[in-house]
Amino acid sequence: MNYDQIFDSAIERLHSEGRYRVFIDILRNKGAYPNARCFAGHNGPKPITVWCSNDYLAMGQHPKVIAAMEEALHNVGAGSGGTRNIGGNTHYHIELEAELADLHGKEGALLFTSGYVSNDATLSTLAKILPGCVIFSDELNHASMIAGIRNSGAEKKVFRHNDVEHLEELLAETDPNVPKLIAFESVYSMDGDVAPIHAICDLAEKYNALTYIDEVHAVGMYGPRGGGITDRDEAAHRIDIIEGTLGKAFGVMGGYIAADRKIIDVIRSYAPGFIFTTSLSPVLVAGVLASVRHLKASSEEREGQQAAAAYLKQAFAEAGLPVMPSTTHIVPLMVGDPVRAKKIADILLAEYGVYVQPINFPTVPRGTERLRFTPGPSHTEAMMDELTEALVEIWQRMELEIRKAA
Amino acid sequence: MNYDQIFDSAIERLHSEGRYRVFIDILRNKGAYPNARCFAGHNGPKPITVWCSNDYLAMGQHPKVIAAMEEALHNVGAGSGGTRNIGGNTHYHIELEAELADLHGKEGALLFTSGYVSNDATLSTLAKILPGCVIFSDELNHASMIAGIRNSGAEKKVFRHNDVEHLEELLAETDPNVPKLIAFESVYSMDGDVAPIHAICDLAEKYNALTYIDEVHAVGMYGPRGGGITDRDEAAHRIDIIEGTLGKAFGVMGGYIAADRKIIDVIRSYAPGFIFTTSLSPVLVAGVLASVRHLKASSEEREGQQAAAAYLKQAFAEAGLPVMPSTTHIVPLMVGDPVRAKKIADILLAEYGVYVQPINFPTVPRGTERLRFTPGPSHTEAMMDELTEALVEIWQRMELEIRKAA
Ligand SMILES: Cc1ncc(COP(=O)(O)O)c(C=O)c1O
Ligand SMILES: Cc1ncc(COP(=O)(O)O)c(C=O)c1O
Repeated sequence: MNYDQIFDSAIERLHSEGRYRVFIDILRNKGAYPNARCFAGHNGPKPITVWCSNDYLAMGQHPKVIAAMEEALHNVGAGSGGTRNIGGNTHYHIELEAELADLHGKEGALLFTSGYVSNDATLSTLAKILPGCVIFSDELNHASMIAGIRNSGAEKKVFRHNDVEHLEELLAETDPNVPKLIAFESVYSMDGDVAPIHAICDLAEKYNALTYIDEVHAVGMYGPRGGGITDRDEAAHRIDIIEGTLGKAFGVMGGYIAADRKIIDVIRSYAPGFIFTTSLSPVLVAGVLASVRHLKASSEEREGQQAAAAYLKQAFAEAGLPVMPSTTHIVPLMVGDPVRAKKIADILLAEYGVYVQPINFPTVPRGTERLRFTPGPSHTEAMMDELTEALVEIWQRMELEIRKAA
Repeated sequence: MNYDQIFDSAIERLHSEGRYRVFIDILRNKGAYPNARCFAGHNGPKPITVWCSNDYLAMGQHPKVIAAMEEALHNVGAGSGGTRNIGGNTHYHIELEAELADLHGKEGALLFTSGYVSNDATLSTLAKILPGCVIFSDELNHASMIAGIRNSGAEKKVFRHNDVEHLEELLAETDPNVPKLIAFESVYSMDGDVAPIHAICDLAEKYNALTYIDEVHAVGMYGPRGGGITDRDEAAHRIDIIEGTLGKAFGVMGGYIAADRKIIDVIRSYAPGFIFTTSLSPVLVAGVLASVRHLKASSEEREGQQAAAAYLKQAFAEAGLPVMPSTTHIVPLMVGDPVRAKKIADILLAEYGVYVQPINFPTVPRGTERLRFTPGPSHTEAMMDELTEALVEIWQRMELEIRKAA
């Protein structure tokens, strides 16, 4: 038994596949997003432009959010000091849960320390509460949903991505008398496509299944009040559990579910990942409250973001770059190889001050490694033109294919 | 299949066992801890004293922590905007990991969104990396360690609480050629007792096992620099992985592990709970940095807290209240019944403005329900005397046994 050797070979595997991850060391400049400083170089911090943040609407820099956090910091202090049950339930938490329940038109909501934990804790607990439950899971579901499903110990049936016919096949072959849960996402964040929510809900009704949707990449971003794709498509009332994050469009950190009172009470009472952990800092909760309230009333950020994404997709397409067919705010460029993807990203950072992280396995399937751009309302058209030119230059330098539309 | 009925009966079970949890709604008053406001009453917020916070040293209110968070808020904004790998790795994160590695005398450290996630992610990943691993787990280990062990799928052998003889029996009967991991806590927070760390390390050496210690209730609190019981007992170098929280004595939120460079790199590279989640807000990280640095240099808070705990234990014992034999800063009073424990806590809150949460199953075994007091450096002797008198009055009113030392 040589532990060192086992650890060495685990790390060696990553190097040999070209997917060992080196984190780049940055600080954003508040008030000047997407500008940031990178500490990787040798001559002190270097200015860069961030193209891969999930703070999609720059709400993490919004004056209302900053002011709310500052106020909470001075009003109650840094941390909550306890679990929700033991000293860590503040008035901020209760207000935010009410606000999020309202956002999705649900009776209740429940906060978690992250979107990851909300998926893991809710899915694993739900399937344990429902004896014999079978979970139907989209093949591209996020790692946190996969973790929750696996940790539940329930039987899992994976349906092909967004394929309602396949889903129906699996539902039809399953015992009508066992509990069923269909788990899927609204916006798939690495491809930028959207689930056929109504069609899935039709099946859920037909086969008496519960529905669970991850709206992590859609909350704040879609719908007249930022309630996500279920808000835009008027489907929220057809979904049993809507899950979201507070760390992407809302700009802060944390996660939640919204559902009817009874389901919320069950998860609140039974999920270890909710019960046995220090609750979200009230400072974060106060910031999210300001962010959610702002985005319920203002569509300016959403529109600016959609306009930027549309502009960048078109610029990439016109330049003959392999932009993937996203129908959302995500702009992915297919590379198809981890070493090449990393090389392009390295050149962009070193020579152009452009920060975009290469996306490798296990975040995406092997052979579909890509660069994923998330332009926001503060990325200007001039910035996007420059970025396109830089990519064309690198594509040529590396002798990659440029395919202009006929 | 009636989902509602299943959910109803799950909730009904809790009511009938007297352990349905109602969260009390409070706001702490910054600068005036342990004073707080409670929103439960009908006439607006009511002043209360908090006796069950895990912000043991009131660092969540420390001027240095507040100032550091305010500065970060204005310097970089609210959230990190991404996972550690994709845009969410800031200079604050790197600095804090270096600070925590130094605190424990280890080569590296790794941040997680909570202590719960650090236990769950590290234990489940470690046991998956080590083929055939057997985990030896103290029977009183925290829910988050139990989750990580269960989620790893590894074989688990539970040893009786703090019982090194039983641990040795289990180690001796296990194939010498399989990887082994001993997982335990330093301070068990519901009883207040401490693990025999050196004796466990002796066994780990004898049987070639890795060691994993949860120092969640000890970091910041014990040892000349606040490195925990392993700091106080000079045992850190004998432990492979030290895990801690940033949400209790450090006063903010988050979790971490400290270990040698190689183990850190493996967990960093393989743990889904680390990889696939928005990183800790830089505002929190900045606050923790200030807190850890302060507590490395100052023992005043630790000493004040120990003095308060010793005073309260003695006051309870002299009054004949059933204080449990804690050797640490935790002051638990045994009640032994969930309904009675809740009733005592309700009277304390309604009549005395004292907030202490009753501790029920599943946090402690059934039949050992208790009240758990965590006096800190800001709880005065007068407050503790009043608390003792209040408890004696309630004990008499409810006709519970008062047993004065002979
Ligand atoms: C689809 C999806 N669900 C859940 C999460 C986790 O959310 P959080 O970052 O708040 O943990 C992420 C990404 O981080 C995600 O992409
Ligand atoms: C022993 C122990 N480990 C881990 C945790 C989890 O830490 P955190 O609150 O940071 O999630 C707790 C309590 O919350 C605990 O008591």
